[in-house]
Amino acid sequence: MPERFHQILIDASQSIGERDWSVRSSDLGFDGDWSISLQTLRGGRQEGVQLLEIDAGALKVTLVPTRGMGITQVEHRGERIGWHSPSAEHVHPSQVRLESRGGLGWLEGFNEWLVRCGLEWAGGPGPDRFITNTGAEAEMDLTLHGRIANIPASRLEVIVEPGDPPLIRVRGVVHERCFYGPRLELESTVSIEVGTDRLLVDDRVINRAANHQEMQLLYHINYGSPLLSEGARFLAPVRRVMPINEHAASAVDCWDIYRGPTPGFVEEVYCLEPIPDATGQVPVLLQSAAGDRGVLMHQRVDQLPCLTLWKSTGAEDDGYVTGIEPGCGYPHNRRIERAHGRVPTLGAGEARSFRLEFGFLEGHDALRPWVEAIEASNEKWCRPEHEPMAVDDPRKA
Amino acid sequence: MPERFHQILIDASQSIGERDWSVRSSDLGFDGDWSISLQTLRGGRQEGVQLLEIDAGALKVTLVPTRGMGITQVEHRGERIGWHSPSAEHVHPSQVRLESRGGLGWLEGFNEWLVRCGLEWAGGPGPDRFITNTGAEAEMDLTLHGRIANIPASRLEVIVEPGDPPLIRVRGVVHERCFYGPRLELESTVSIEVGTDRLLVDDRVINRAANHQEMQLLYHINYGSPLLSEGARFLAPVRRVMPINEHAASAVDCWDIYRGPTPGFVEEVYCLEPIPDATGQVPVLLQSAAGDRGVLMHQRVDQLPCLTLWKSTGAEDDGYVTGIEPGCGYPHNRRIERAHGRVPTLGAGEARSFRLEFGFLEGHDALRPWVEAIEASNEKWCRPEHEPMAVDDPRKA
Amino acid sequence: MPERFHQILIDASQSIGERDWSVRSSDLGFDGDWSISLQTLRGGRQEGVQLLEIDAGALKVTLVPTRGMGITQVEHRGERIGWHSPSAEHVHPSQVRLESRGGLGWLEGFNEWLVRCGLEWAGGPGPDRFITNTGAEAEMDLTLHGRIANIPASRLEVIVEPGDPPLIRVRGVVHERCFYGPRLELESTVSIEVGTDRLLVDDRVINRAANHQEMQLLYHINYGSPLLSEGARFLAPVRRVMPINEHAASAVDCWDIYRGPTPGFVEEVYCLEPIPDATGQVPVLLQSAAGDRGVLMHQRVDQLPCLTLWKSTGAEDDGYVTGIEPGCGYPHNRRIERAHGRVPTLGAGEARSFRLEFGFLEGHDALRPWVEAIEASNEKWCRPEHEPMAVDDPRKA
Repeated sequence: MPERFHQILIDASQSIGERDWSVRSSDLGFDGDWSISLQTLRGGRQEGVQLLEIDAGALKVTLVPTRGMGITQVEHRGERIGWHSPSAEHVHPSQVRLESRGGLGWLEGFNEWLVRCGLEWAGGPGPDRFITNTGAEAEMDLTLHGRIANIPASRLEVIVEPGDPPLIRVRGVVHERCFYGPRLELESTVSIEVGTDRLLVDDRVINRAANHQEMQLLYHINYGSPLLSEGARFLAPVRRVMPINEHAASAVDCWDIYRGPTPGFVEEVYCLEPIPDATGQVPVLLQSAAGDRGVLMHQRVDQLPCLTLWKSTGAEDDGYVTGIEPGCGYPHNRRIERAHGRVPTLGAGEARSFRLEFGFLEGHDALRPWVEAIEASNEKWCRPEHEPMAVDDPRKA
Repeated sequence: MPERFHQILIDASQSIGERDWSVRSSDLGFDGDWSISLQTLRGGRQEGVQLLEIDAGALKVTLVPTRGMGITQVEHRGERIGWHSPSAEHVHPSQVRLESRGGLGWLEGFNEWLVRCGLEWAGGPGPDRFITNTGAEAEMDLTLHGRIANIPASRLEVIVEPGDPPLIRVRGVVHERCFYGPRLELESTVSIEVGTDRLLVDDRVINRAANHQEMQLLYHINYGSPLLSEGARFLAPVRRVMPINEHAASAVDCWDIYRGPTPGFVEEVYCLEPIPDATGQVPVLLQSAAGDRGVLMHQRVDQLPCLTLWKSTGAEDDGYVTGIEPGCGYPHNRRIERAHGRVPTLGAGEARSFRLEFGFLEGHDALRPWVEAIEASNEKWCRPEHEPMAVDDPRKA
Repeated sequence: MPERFHQILIDASQSIGERDWSVRSSDLGFDGDWSISLQTLRGGRQEGVQLLEIDAGALKVTLVPTRGMGITQVEHRGERIGWHSPSAEHVHPSQVRLESRGGLGWLEGFNEWLVRCGLEWAGGPGPDRFITNTGAEAEMDLTLHGRIANIPASRLEVIVEPGDPPLIRVRGVVHERCFYGPRLELESTVSIEVGTDRLLVDDRVINRAANHQEMQLLYHINYGSPLLSEGARFLAPVRRVMPINEHAASAVDCWDIYRGPTPGFVEEVYCLEPIPDATGQVPVLLQSAAGDRGVLMHQRVDQLPCLTLWKSTGAEDDGYVTGIEPGCGYPHNRRIERAHGRVPTLGAGEARSFRLEFGFLEGHDALRPWVEAIEASNEKWCRPEHEPMAVDDPRKA
């Protein structure tokens, strides 16, 4: 049996930063045909951005350590899972001006399959309070979805555990920290057993400060063609379906069905209250129109109690996409989330864990039991609301 | 006859990005002595910026792919054409904070002979409306002269067409794009026939979005010493000369004559209505004080109906300079330009072409016919106005 | 005797930028064991940042040319002098968004032992007037402590003068310049005689513009553990001790004594009026709790008339630190400093010199004479005030 393999690719504390690196199963005496590689991109706004690719057979997963350990795409048995963002390049964080476009600058780099919104704040732009150096409360303009997706990883390591099948793990550490500000650390581990159709994302957020610290975390997991198309369905056992505004409310009757690419489509957002199973997990399924393909995600409500569905099914060229967004809260501005008690606080040194499990399904048989169980739950419990979600905004109070 | 030469130097889609590269005529079996080279700069704020130099004999042209395919300078038979900006280095876009200095951050990198202002917006900073992710109209602060000059090219290629003389072409592609924002593409081609005194800039702006999109484009073409000096003249056949403000109005009597470097000089801007010739072209001439040197530009009014003259003849050390600015409009904030109908809209997939032709002239004989023709036109038609240009600002309405 | 050694490591004007470089005494035929090395960092937010380390025996000094020639730390006979900032990495300026966090973005990179605040402005964020391109006065939001610490050096050179002992000098040039803005140049020279405990910082600020220009310069010199601990003392001969706000006023009775790390501690800032000796110099001492270690700084009041003491003795993990801040003024926003006549103006081409001399002391005997002299002065002259400092703010007038 080959030995456990461990390689550090980035470590800022030791000034380690590999440029181009790869390893194949055969190099390490493993059976099978899998590989892991690091590439440094060239050209345009992606100059210097690094991609880490895990080719584990059935799944090929591409991470972007330079962009906060996001996952840019997954290839499942030859089919690309992700979307086609107008931001086609992997934009380097130094080229992203978060404050621009009225606080929407984050959208200039947004192209990932899985991107994290957080950690000091997530959600919509706009003013919220913060504590300055003088200890006084002041107001700052939060920018859309925070900073973590635009911070390069300070550490990146690859581990392969021998076994049958072997287990590939890629772990990254991203620091969101500032003097007189937060000291939040994201430790993210992506795991795949070679040859399987299952992907695990295990995150820990640690408050390294000596004081308690608010945090927000919302996973923005995005799907476009070909999985998304007219007639594709979103399935999750939920109690309430809360349209985020009038516009979404007017379309609530088909909240869980997708339209095809529709030029001029304006986003529809639904805040959902998921119902966990006996183990505390919620199965969330995106099902292809033909019903024979899907991605099944499990979130744990003790970790991520909220779920948001974002439909942005505009023209293909404008980024035909839906976002499935498990989170500590919903994507409102932090001042609103706080008013509703959805902004967790970490004590000094405290850590929280967040696990997402993804299964990439093929064939009606694989999807059917999940579809049936979720449909049964929703028939009984699901109550789509026809009025926009009530929002307490302390600024308007 | 040697073969057509084609080399890709940058292509983000293939992660190609040459660092230092060059080719000489003799390498390719061409006669004559010309060369093309790419250099990656080091040091200060220009670390990583790339320059592409075409040495075509009579003309030596230096492009900056990293700064939106601007042209930093031209050397014409040993004389440098351009200006001496206080921003002496070619500042990397990642070091330019467009939002800083009240929206004037663009000025930190401004040092080109030819720089494009655009594409989503150009002109003065200040608020204008835009459409957010929710489909709602909101306000954002536009920054001076837009973003295109601070976006690295995603593609750069060199083509040499055999012939007598051979034709050197350098083509770059720059993407100004953002999710829930524009998808504008600039394809810029600079062409020089070896040994000639003529430079062509052929730009296409393409709307890659599925929806119509506003665009602005203004070429900021800048001249300092030695071509500019006391007594140098600006010549173009124009109907109206509209001072942009009271200050410019007070100096309108010598709107087309330059002063020498004048410490404390405050900029004077004149918006001009050019008169095209029978082919739709406008000859625009900057003539040296001695009358024996000049740069002659041709713009087409169907492409670029407006022309602006910017005089900023402060001290040599502060950037003694004049800008000649053919554009789709004038350099007001976009909300003002829109109110006057000078902001074009591109349909989905639509492209517009823009051609500027530059002739670098030497000797009185070369300049005289142009001077005489323009003087004759202006004697008949040119009406400098003594009141500041009327401006409809929808915010003040 | 070996020859004078001179090496240029960075020169943007020649596109010189060494990546990794070092020289040892023996390489150059010098006796003794000293070295100078340049390293380019990898990983996280410090990718591409360069460190220049001088190992001169008793003192090991690390400069950061990429961050405006700041000095990140000093190691004195094995003891690290500096502090442990939450911003543990040397953050690349392209990753620092000065405008973020309500103008406090500077804090994201703040981790130096000696960092300069300036040059166009220093001090607190907030609105101040400036002159736009049109010659009009407008308002812009100044960001905390200005830009110089986030501009990469355009020139870096190393000089070794033979002698007994040899003298090592590292000189850097940083340009803070912008069209229609300042053209300020910092030329900074750090000198150490091999084997000594003395460090000289000689700065010149030159106004390269053709017009007069305001400037601000405040040195932020920061100490944490182990030199700083409960019972450590600040000593300098001062006349007035002016608390910057109510909070500092309430703690003025122990303004010169430090607490240990205190979670939740809110900064206390005292503006001081130093008393020079007969040669115009002020000795400023930070003394360890045991009284047997210290750093003695000399500032010249004709160059730097003001001195500020910043106490930020929060928890070790949040950055337990004190700042000793000799400056042209105090760290208020520039509009306030101007109203009090503390913003110098440089004429066209004018330069000002600033020298700071640091002695790293060991043993009670080395510290005692300084302690006694300062105590004697303060007993006679020092008047801590119990009311917050009066501030004329023209915006509130």
